[in-house]
Amino acid sequence: MSSKPNAIVAQSGGPTAVINSSACGVIQEAIKSGKIGRILGATNGILGVLKEDLFDISAEKPETIEALRQTPAAAIGSCRYKLKSLEDSKADYERILDVFKARNIHYFFYIGGNDSMDTADKVNKLAAQGGYELVCMGVPKTIDNDLAYTDHCPGYGSTAKYVATCAMEAGRDTEALYTTDTCTILEVMGRNAGWLAAATGLARRCAEDAPHLIYMPEAAFSFDKLVNDVREVLKEVGRVFIVVGEGLKDKNGRYITADTGAFGKDSFGHTQLGGVAEMLKSVIEREVGIKARFNKLGTNQRSAIHFASLTDSNEAYMCGQMAVKYAMDGVNGKMVTLVREKSAEYKCVTGLAELIDVANGEKKVPAEYINDEGNNITDAMRDYVRPLVQGEVPVDIGEDGLPAFMRFERRPVEKKLPKYL
Amino acid sequence: MSSKPNAIVAQSGGPTAVINSSACGVIQEAIKSGKIGRILGATNGILGVLKEDLFDISAEKPETIEALRQTPAAAIGSCRYKLKSLEDSKADYERILDVFKARNIHYFFYIGGNDSMDTADKVNKLAAQGGYELVCMGVPKTIDNDLAYTDHCPGYGSTAKYVATCAMEAGRDTEALYTTDTCTILEVMGRNAGWLAAATGLARRCAEDAPHLIYMPEAAFSFDKLVNDVREVLKEVGRVFIVVGEGLKDKNGRYITADTGAFGKDSFGHTQLGGVAEMLKSVIEREVGIKARFNKLGTNQRSAIHFASLTDSNEAYMCGQMAVKYAMDGVNGKMVTLVREKSAEYKCVTGLAELIDVANGEKKVPAEYINDEGNNITDAMRDYVRPLVQGEVPVDIGEDGLPAFMRFERRPVEKKLPKYL
Repeated sequence: MSSKPNAIVAQSGGPTAVINSSACGVIQEAIKSGKIGRILGATNGILGVLKEDLFDISAEKPETIEALRQTPAAAIGSCRYKLKSLEDSKADYERILDVFKARNIHYFFYIGGNDSMDTADKVNKLAAQGGYELVCMGVPKTIDNDLAYTDHCPGYGSTAKYVATCAMEAGRDTEALYTTDTCTILEVMGRNAGWLAAATGLARRCAEDAPHLIYMPEAAFSFDKLVNDVREVLKEVGRVFIVVGEGLKDKNGRYITADTGAFGKDSFGHTQLGGVAEMLKSVIEREVGIKARFNKLGTNQRSAIHFASLTDSNEAYMCGQMAVKYAMDGVNGKMVTLVREKSAEYKCVTGLAELIDVANGEKKVPAEYINDEGNNITDAMRDYVRPLVQGEVPVDIGEDGLPAFMRFERRPVEKKLPKYL
Repeated sequence: MSSKPNAIVAQSGGPTAVINSSACGVIQEAIKSGKIGRILGATNGILGVLKEDLFDISAEKPETIEALRQTPAAAIGSCRYKLKSLEDSKADYERILDVFKARNIHYFFYIGGNDSMDTADKVNKLAAQGGYELVCMGVPKTIDNDLAYTDHCPGYGSTAKYVATCAMEAGRDTEALYTTDTCTILEVMGRNAGWLAAATGLARRCAEDAPHLIYMPEAAFSFDKLVNDVREVLKEVGRVFIVVGEGLKDKNGRYITADTGAFGKDSFGHTQLGGVAEMLKSVIEREVGIKARFNKLGTNQRSAIHFASLTDSNEAYMCGQMAVKYAMDGVNGKMVTLVREKSAEYKCVTGLAELIDVANGEKKVPAEYINDEGNNITDAMRDYVRPLVQGEVPVDIGEDGLPAFMRFERRPVEKKLPKYL
């Protein structure tokens, strides 16, 4: 056994097509650094730390680690476990430090969104208070693209490419069948931010192309406006293809629909959304008198490695890799950010933001990316998203004609502490 | 102008990723034959013939025609217009022949499913009765794979590959988040036949892999059984990924759900289905007490050229090409079929079936492809579908990072007859 400090890498929140690419960057760079003993994976994010559910990633085959780049979702395991303030969740934070101490963990790399950055920040502060040497680095991840302090988020480009392609393809379906199936609604994710809905606008190269209407949570939605918009498009194009973000809100900022069932809120207290497209379908059929269909890609839009953006995948890897490099250089308590250079050709480098700032921030689609009518995007949005969807991630195909994914062997690390949770 | 006989090519019914590949085969082979004057496209299938909405496909650029192979949906235009019996729809059939006569049309290539084969057969018989020389050839098309007399249908392999991949990918998402989002339901198309749901079984390479449960219209469905099945899988795997065909039926053969809205039936009188996955979600949440999600790919599953089967695309092309070759050899009133040769390596050639037989037939998933419990597939089904999903259709990518599709210029053919419809 090495006496070098060990590291934990963990993933959190909704998976993406490239979150494993970030994990690959962390792991490969940590091994390369020569300064880290064992790299442990925390099964299901912070839950794995709390439960001492750890496995030795550094003992996995190099080809398994490399194959992370073409495997979607979160191979280490993710969670939605919410830690509250240091006061309210004190036992949890102390347990995390106990596990770190018992394992000689001095590096914590957490790949996730703002809730994860919040957790990492609090663990870091508690360690500092107690004089335990710990480096906590955040690696950004979210298809929603709503993290502040970064030009864009790893995970967004791949889903953007996929949903824009889906709009193109299903748009051609509507074009072919417009004499009966005149309206199609594509529902995409995005609770508070319309970045994914906005991205589908890239698919529209001419007036005929889908999508004809894009509704984002940032623009107040009304059914009267919808009905008028649909009638206008029908006059011009003879059919209508609509993209809606799941989190549409009315002028008072209230979700136009919310699942009120038993599982209507997730563990973070976020309202679980669904049924926006279905609601639009019924209104359009009733008020406009045309047949409407809806497609709801659901979790397929965040796991579609089979047509993921190579740019996104490479940047996700870079964020993971740089988190380790920065840590080795003595940086602590920061999240790696993506910085778009001001140049004619797209170029993206990394920067740093305070974990706590990212935790408390949110980035919505700015007004200048949305048209005046609030039903489409502007060229500025197209220019923003275009570089992010370039290239396709190469995926190995098995003998059965389907993609080949990796799974860890997961050699468990023996538990040392009393059971918790 | 040539005095050679002209041809009409038309597309009908629900689009697929490769129906344009069949059109490409018809057009390129018809040009190559040297025996056909102009090849006219009928905009929106038989509706285009009835309305004299025709355009000169032979005047389109060769690269436009070639690009049909990588463009999804129905580029000529499709329809759901239903012709009834020769007695009940006599005016329609006579109008079709009038249009054919006015344009010197002696070849009619109709790419579609059993309703289209029925139309082609009736037009053919009326022409024969009236002594008008006409060759009507059918080219099979349906993602549902439910046409009789053919081993499989062009369009099926591509959607099979896509939905199986979607099950793999979303399956990994559920695997990553199983501590909260424990159940995912993927709804796929298939009104009466479960071929697409069955195809997703190919994605399951080991017990951990999705899908764990597959429900097809061929196996009587009950909610009691579902709840038991889900509990069993949870015990074994700790999460559950379910694929459902949209047309699930109970033991009395009644759809477990049906859209009863204003557009509850399509123009063929088929019940429009939707909401099966949503219904399962609510039952599982209530009865099993776990959070469930659903993904409904909708028309995206039949238009996904970005990950379509090359085998399927090539066979779709071959069916179009062979329809012309057979026609040139004097064959009439037949649909081209796909015949799987009995050999160790997969090989597929074409055969012929009577249009009327295909029109009246239907092919469901046979009992030997479904397990005894009616909740999964057998190895025989895997062996059947595996060769059909091999290879990927190469798709050109534009500068914007998204696929490049073609559109016809559609130089309209001047109308000669009085308005109809």
